[in-house]
Amino acid sequence: MDSIFEILMDLPLFQGVSREKLAELIEKTPFHFLKFTDGQTIASAGDTCTHIRFIISGKAVVETPAQSLRVSVSETLTAPAVIGPEYLFGLNTSYPFSVTAKGTCGVLQITKADYVNILNSDRVFLFNVLNILSRNAQHGTANLLAVSSGSVAERLAFVVLSLTHHGATDIRINYKQRDLCALISTQRTTLVSAVAKMQEEGILTLTPSEIIIPDRRCLLSILHTTD
Amino acid sequence: MDSIFEILMDLPLFQGVSREKLAELIEKTPFHFLKFTDGQTIASAGDTCTHIRFIISGKAVVETPAQSLRVSVSETLTAPAVIGPEYLFGLNTSYPFSVTAKGTCGVLQITKADYVNILNSDRVFLFNVLNILSRNAQHGTANLLAVSSGSVAERLAFVVLSLTHHGATDIRINYKQRDLCALISTQRTTLVSAVAKMQEEGILTLTPSEIIIPDRRCLLSILHTTD
Repeated sequence: MDSIFEILMDLPLFQGVSREKLAELIEKTPFHFLKFTDGQTIASAGDTCTHIRFIISGKAVVETPAQSLRVSVSETLTAPAVIGPEYLFGLNTSYPFSVTAKGTCGVLQITKADYVNILNSDRVFLFNVLNILSRNAQHGTANLLAVSSGSVAERLAFVVLSLTHHGATDIRINYKQRDLCALISTQRTTLVSAVAKMQEEGILTLTPSEIIIPDRRCLLSILHTTD
Repeated sequence: MDSIFEILMDLPLFQGVSREKLAELIEKTPFHFLKFTDGQTIASAGDTCTHIRFIISGKAVVETPAQSLRVSVSETLTAPAVIGPEYLFGLNTSYPFSVTAKGTCGVLQITKADYVNILNSDRVFLFNVLNILSRNAQHGTANLLAVSSGSVAERLAFVVLSLTHHGATDIRINYKQRDLCALISTQRTTLVSAVAKMQEEGILTLTPSEIIIPDRRCLLSILHTTD
């Protein structure tokens, strides 16, 4: 079992921070450690983002619904991971997704005010956050610029990569066929044959209500991109 | 003529900062003020982003090319504006676009190290940057989630909004028809009729080699979104 220090030092915010510095931080900052049981809601779509939240043990499912189409994309995030760090500031400070525990899930949350204090307390924290937010801001443009053929596989990869995060597993697209066709701009027959081909290639699995993509890296390789 | 203080206080990084604080900052930080003449290159695509750069007078054209398609999207940014703040950190620290003066253009640049010092010196700067980067990180997801019909107009709006910035004017898509069809996933005949309809509606103007979109807000209203 890792000590709490080892777990925290793996989180994107605390990378490169010494054990001493972290001990000092824990002493003066209220760190809230929460446990969620399987299926329990960690955050709902539309919730105001009042804390920075990290998954520090177990797994959580993050599900992002389209606004007016019956399509949603879910992913499993495994500890250590940060939940939507770009929704604490900016134009929209509420989560566009819901977060649910998958099995027992440990979460560390820190209030926005304490989080800002941490960023101000040491340059390493600041660099980590500038890197995380910049990476997320580059993400959409890079994937769009990587489109080359405009095939259904590329478009599906683009949409799913845009709505999921680095390191995600067990990605599931829950959809009405007509609405998924609208989202990725294709005809039903073209969608069906493209998805069947991707199933043959081992990229995804089709069930009556879902498309399951076990490994996000397959989508990155369709677009010849990284993240 | 605005004083240099008034110009700086309009920049996204310095919003909400007092004149006294700014005077103090200018005294201890090397601010590099550069002048570019019409058509002169301010930055080339692929350049490493070693400085944070602001347009403080005049205008500049930012042009983003697709990687393997003959499509590029350009926009005019007018002072006060920041140039690609998300490329100083993160996975990719080179600009994906070129920046060229349009008429005489004044640029303020600050080295990355001095920029980090500024962020550390006062909470207002830090908040401003967290807001800017978060807004840019939310941008792509929000536009994608706003897609409702998947029409050619929506897809064109999505692509152009993703590759341009808040406040941009005179947006121009320079393209080979076949490649633009691949990027927005449509057939030639569908593209031609959709673009003709958008021209009738006053959203864009067609020339033999370009699609010109004078007002970015028309694209935001196609997606019923803001930024």
